[in-house]
Amino acid sequence: MKPEVFLYDTTLRDGNQDRKISLSLADKLQIAKLLDAFGFDYIEGGWPNPSNPTDVEFYKRIGEMHLTHAKIAAFGSTRRPKVLAENDPLLQSLIASQAPVKTIFGKSWDLHVTEVIRTTLEENLDMIESSVRFLKENSEETIYDAEHFFDGYKANPQYAMETIKAAALGGADFIVLCDTNGGTMPWEMKSILAEVQKVISVPLGIHAHNDSGLAVANSLVSVDAGVHMVQGVLNGYGERCGNADLTTIAADLVFKLKKQIYCGENMKDLRKVSLALDQIVNIPSDIKAPYVGDAAFAHKGGAHIDGVMKVSRSFEHVDPKSVGNNRVFVTSDQAGGSLVVEKIKELLHIEIDKKDPKVQNLLHLIKERENAGWHFDSAEASFEMLVYRTLGRFAQPFTVENYRVIEDRSEQGVSVSQASVKLRVNDEISHQVAEGDGPVNALDAALRKALLPYYPYMKNVRLDDFKVRVLGSNVGSDAHVRVWSTFGDEDGVWHVAGVSTNIIEASWFALVDGLSYKMYKESLKGNAR
Amino acid sequence: MKPEVFLYDTTLRDGNQDRKISLSLADKLQIAKLLDAFGFDYIEGGWPNPSNPTDVEFYKRIGEMHLTHAKIAAFGSTRRPKVLAENDPLLQSLIASQAPVKTIFGKSWDLHVTEVIRTTLEENLDMIESSVRFLKENSEETIYDAEHFFDGYKANPQYAMETIKAAALGGADFIVLCDTNGGTMPWEMKSILAEVQKVISVPLGIHAHNDSGLAVANSLVSVDAGVHMVQGVLNGYGERCGNADLTTIAADLVFKLKKQIYCGENMKDLRKVSLALDQIVNIPSDIKAPYVGDAAFAHKGGAHIDGVMKVSRSFEHVDPKSVGNNRVFVTSDQAGGSLVVEKIKELLHIEIDKKDPKVQNLLHLIKERENAGWHFDSAEASFEMLVYRTLGRFAQPFTVENYRVIEDRSEQGVSVSQASVKLRVNDEISHQVAEGDGPVNALDAALRKALLPYYPYMKNVRLDDFKVRVLGSNVGSDAHVRVWSTFGDEDGVWHVAGVSTNIIEASWFALVDGLSYKMYKESLKGNAR
Repeated sequence: MKPEVFLYDTTLRDGNQDRKISLSLADKLQIAKLLDAFGFDYIEGGWPNPSNPTDVEFYKRIGEMHLTHAKIAAFGSTRRPKVLAENDPLLQSLIASQAPVKTIFGKSWDLHVTEVIRTTLEENLDMIESSVRFLKENSEETIYDAEHFFDGYKANPQYAMETIKAAALGGADFIVLCDTNGGTMPWEMKSILAEVQKVISVPLGIHAHNDSGLAVANSLVSVDAGVHMVQGVLNGYGERCGNADLTTIAADLVFKLKKQIYCGENMKDLRKVSLALDQIVNIPSDIKAPYVGDAAFAHKGGAHIDGVMKVSRSFEHVDPKSVGNNRVFVTSDQAGGSLVVEKIKELLHIEIDKKDPKVQNLLHLIKERENAGWHFDSAEASFEMLVYRTLGRFAQPFTVENYRVIEDRSEQGVSVSQASVKLRVNDEISHQVAEGDGPVNALDAALRKALLPYYPYMKNVRLDDFKVRVLGSNVGSDAHVRVWSTFGDEDGVWHVAGVSTNIIEASWFALVDGLSYKMYKESLKGNAR
Repeated sequence: MKPEVFLYDTTLRDGNQDRKISLSLADKLQIAKLLDAFGFDYIEGGWPNPSNPTDVEFYKRIGEMHLTHAKIAAFGSTRRPKVLAENDPLLQSLIASQAPVKTIFGKSWDLHVTEVIRTTLEENLDMIESSVRFLKENSEETIYDAEHFFDGYKANPQYAMETIKAAALGGADFIVLCDTNGGTMPWEMKSILAEVQKVISVPLGIHAHNDSGLAVANSLVSVDAGVHMVQGVLNGYGERCGNADLTTIAADLVFKLKKQIYCGENMKDLRKVSLALDQIVNIPSDIKAPYVGDAAFAHKGGAHIDGVMKVSRSFEHVDPKSVGNNRVFVTSDQAGGSLVVEKIKELLHIEIDKKDPKVQNLLHLIKERENAGWHFDSAEASFEMLVYRTLGRFAQPFTVENYRVIEDRSEQGVSVSQASVKLRVNDEISHQVAEGDGPVNALDAALRKALLPYYPYMKNVRLDDFKVRVLGSNVGSDAHVRVWSTFGDEDGVWHVAGVSTNIIEASWFALVDGLSYKMYKESLKGNAR
C-alpha cells in the first residue's frame, strides 16, 4: 500500500508545549511505541541539543528500540546567522542524534527575520538553503518547516516564496507550510497553496494550529488541495489552543476524503490509542472529541434515539464501531420505556415482560430518579443496583440503623469531622465511629469500618473520584445536590450517584450503592462474605 | 449598524442536549439574560409543548422580562402527516408560547421521510409549506431549519431542493441549512451552497455540528459564501461532539472575516461571557478554547516568549485584550503581579506601592489562594474581601467562636441537619442554633440568625445559587472542594468562593465572605449596623 498522505506526529515536541503537559523520558518512549503501533508514519521526538538532555537521551534509547513502521525525526532550526552550517552546534546535535529524519524550521515572515532573529533577508535565505543542504548530505531524509508561512505570505508574498525556494534548492524532501499562529482562514490557505504549487515541485505538507478553531479544517483543505503530509498531535495537544488534532484528521482522511493512509487499517483502534495517550499525559479525556469521545455517538434527544433505532445512519455520520467507539442512548427523561427494557434484558440475560407489575414499578422508579437528577447514564452501577433490588436479584446484606455526622470548628479555627454508623449485619449490630478529612470522608471511613469485619474483600475497594453538583440553581443552599463517585477494585471501576437536598444524604446514597455493587459482584463469584 | 450576519444561539435547546448538561428554568432564564446582554441576535429557548412544562414556563417568564436586543425564538417541527397545520397540537403550542420568532425543522433527506417519519415525499413537502405558512401568518418571523440538508442533497439533490423551495413558498424569513450529523466537508458545503443560491432567494443560514471537528470551519465557509445567519451554541455545547461554537465563530467573524455583527462591539466581554456560561452549566472551562481559554495566549516555548516580547504579533494572531483575555508566559510565574496591582488600584481608587509589605503580603495571599483553586475571576466579592481585610479597609465586625453541624439519620430513615454558630459581635456573644435542609442550609440559617439582631439589613440578603466542584480528580472523598455561591440583595448580586478539603468548611468560607461583603457595602453607606 502506497500512502497518499503521510501523518507526522509531533506530540513529543509540539504537544509537550501544552500548558498541562510535561513529558518524562519514560512517557516519551511509551508514547512513541503507541504512535508507531497505530501506524503513524513519522514521529518527531524532540529537540536534541546539549541544553535538552532528555531529548538527547530519547534519540539514543529510541534508536535501540524496534519500531514497526514509523520513522523517527529530530527537530531543530536553521543555522544561526554568520556561521557555516557544518560549524553550527545545534545542527551538529541533530546529526549526532542519528535520527534518520531531520526536520528544521526557518523563517518565512520578513517581520521575524528583521525584528525577531534580527538578521538580513538575504542571510536568512542562505541560512535556509545551507542548513537544509548540510542535513540532507548527512541524513536519509530532510523536512523543511516554513514557520509562519501563511502570515509571511500575506505580508510579503515574494519573500515568503523565496524562502521555500531556498529550501527546495537545498534539497528538502518535504516542504511543510506552517500556520504557526493559527490565524489563517481555510479559503486563504487554499489560494496561497495554489500559488505555491505553481512554483514548488517538492512534495508539500501542512502544519496547523487551532487558535481560530480551524486546525482540522485547514489540514483537510490542504490535503484536498494536494499536500502529502499532515503534521499534528494525537488528541490535539499543544501550546495555546493546541496543534491540529491527528485523531480527528486520521478519521476524516479515511472516512471522508477516502485517502489511503498507512494507519487506515487500524482505525478500529483509534479510540483505544486516543484514550491511552490521555492516560499517559494524565489529562481527562474530552468526552465530546470527534469519533473517539464517550459522547461522540451518544444520542439524547427522543427523536434522535427513535431515528437511530430505525436507521442508524439517519443520525450517525459513521459507524461507531469503525473507530472502536460505541453507540450510547443517554437514559434521560426523554428516552422511552422500551430502551430501559432493552437494558434490563441485557443485564439479566432474560426475557422480561413490560407489563409485569415488578417491571412497571421499576420503570416508574427509574423515571422518578431520572427526573430527580440521578443521571443514570453516568452512574451505571446505581442503575444496576436499582434493577437488582427491585427485581429481587439482590438482597442488601445489611440494614442501616442510623448514622450521625458531627462537624466541629473550634475557637482555634480547627475543623474536626466525625461520623458514626450503626448497621445491622447478619442479625448483629455493627456500630463504628471514625474521623475524616471532611464529613463525607469520615462517613466513608465509618461505613467501611462497620462492614469490613463481615466482608474482608471491602479492603480492596477504592473510592477513586467524588464529584458534587447542585441541580437547579437559584435555589440557594437547599437545592438538590447530586453526588457522583467512581469506585474501583482490582477488576475495574464503577460509577454511582446519589441525589438529595442534603449533601450528606446524597453522599450516603452514593457510598452505599458503591459498596453494595462490590457485594453484588462478589455474590456472583459465590462470596457470601 | 446593520448586521451582515445574525448570530442565533441555541444553547437553551440544542446545547441542553449535551450529555453533561441539564438546565433548570432558572438556569435558562439566567443564560438568556447573559446572551442578550452580550448582543446575540436570536435566542432559541426550547421546545414549548405540553410534555415539556419547563419550556412552556420559560416562554411565559421570558415574555415578562425586558431584553435589550435579542429576539426570542420557539422551536418545533413541521406538522405531523395527515393533519392540517392549524390543527396540529405542537404547532399550536408554538403559537401559544407567544415567542416573536418561530423556528421549525423539517426533513430534507428522503431517507428520513420514508424510513424515519414514514410518510410520502409529497406529503412531506406539503407538511413543510403548510407549517411554515401557518406560523408565518401568526408570527413576526419564521425560520425554517432544513434538517440533514447536506446529507439529503448528497443522496437526492432534486428532492432536497424541493423541500427548501416549499419552505420559501410557505413564506420563511430564513432558510437554515443544517449539517445535522456533522459529516460534511467544507468544500462540499461550499459547492452545495452555490447550487442553493442559484435557486433560493430567501436569506440563508447555517447550522453545523462538530462530529468531524469542522463545525466552526463549516460555519465560516458558509458565511464567506454568503449566508446571513449562523446557528450555534456559546462554547460549543451540544449533543454528541457539540454544536458550532459561537464563541469562536463570533471572534473569527469580527477579527478574521471583518464582518459587521451586533455583538462586535462587545468582544472585550467574550471571555467573561464564555466563563459565565461554564459556571452556570457547572462544566470546567476548556483552557485551550480559541480566544477565551486560559491557555489561548499562554506561551511556553522559550523562542516564542522571546518573540512575543520583541513583537507581540509575531506569535499572537490577535491582541488578547481584544477578547478580554491575557497573555501568559508559562515559564515565568511573575505574570499577573502587576495586573493584580492594577485591579487593587481600581478598587480602592488610590495609588499603591508594590513594595509596601502589606501589598507584598496581599499578593502572596492572592497567589496562594489562586493556586489552591479559589479562581477569583468568578468570585469577585471574595477577591475584594481579601483585599479590604489585608489592607485594613474592612474590620470584620464579628469573630467566630465556633460552629458545629450535626447530621443525623434515624432508624426511620429521616435525616435532620442542625447547626449551631457562636459569634462574638460588639463584645457580646451571639449563640444560635437552627435546622435546615442539609448541613449547609442549616449553617447558613444559624449564621444569619446570629447576625440578624445586630444587622437587620441581613434579612434582605438572598443566597441565590450554590455550587460545589471537586478540584483535581482521582483523590477520592478527601479531595479539595470549591464552593461557589451567588448572593443578592435589592441592589444586585455578588459571587464568592471557598476552598477546603472539607465541604462544610469550604461552604463556611463562602457564607462568611458573602455576608461580610454585604456588611462592607452597608459600611460604605454609613450603616454601622
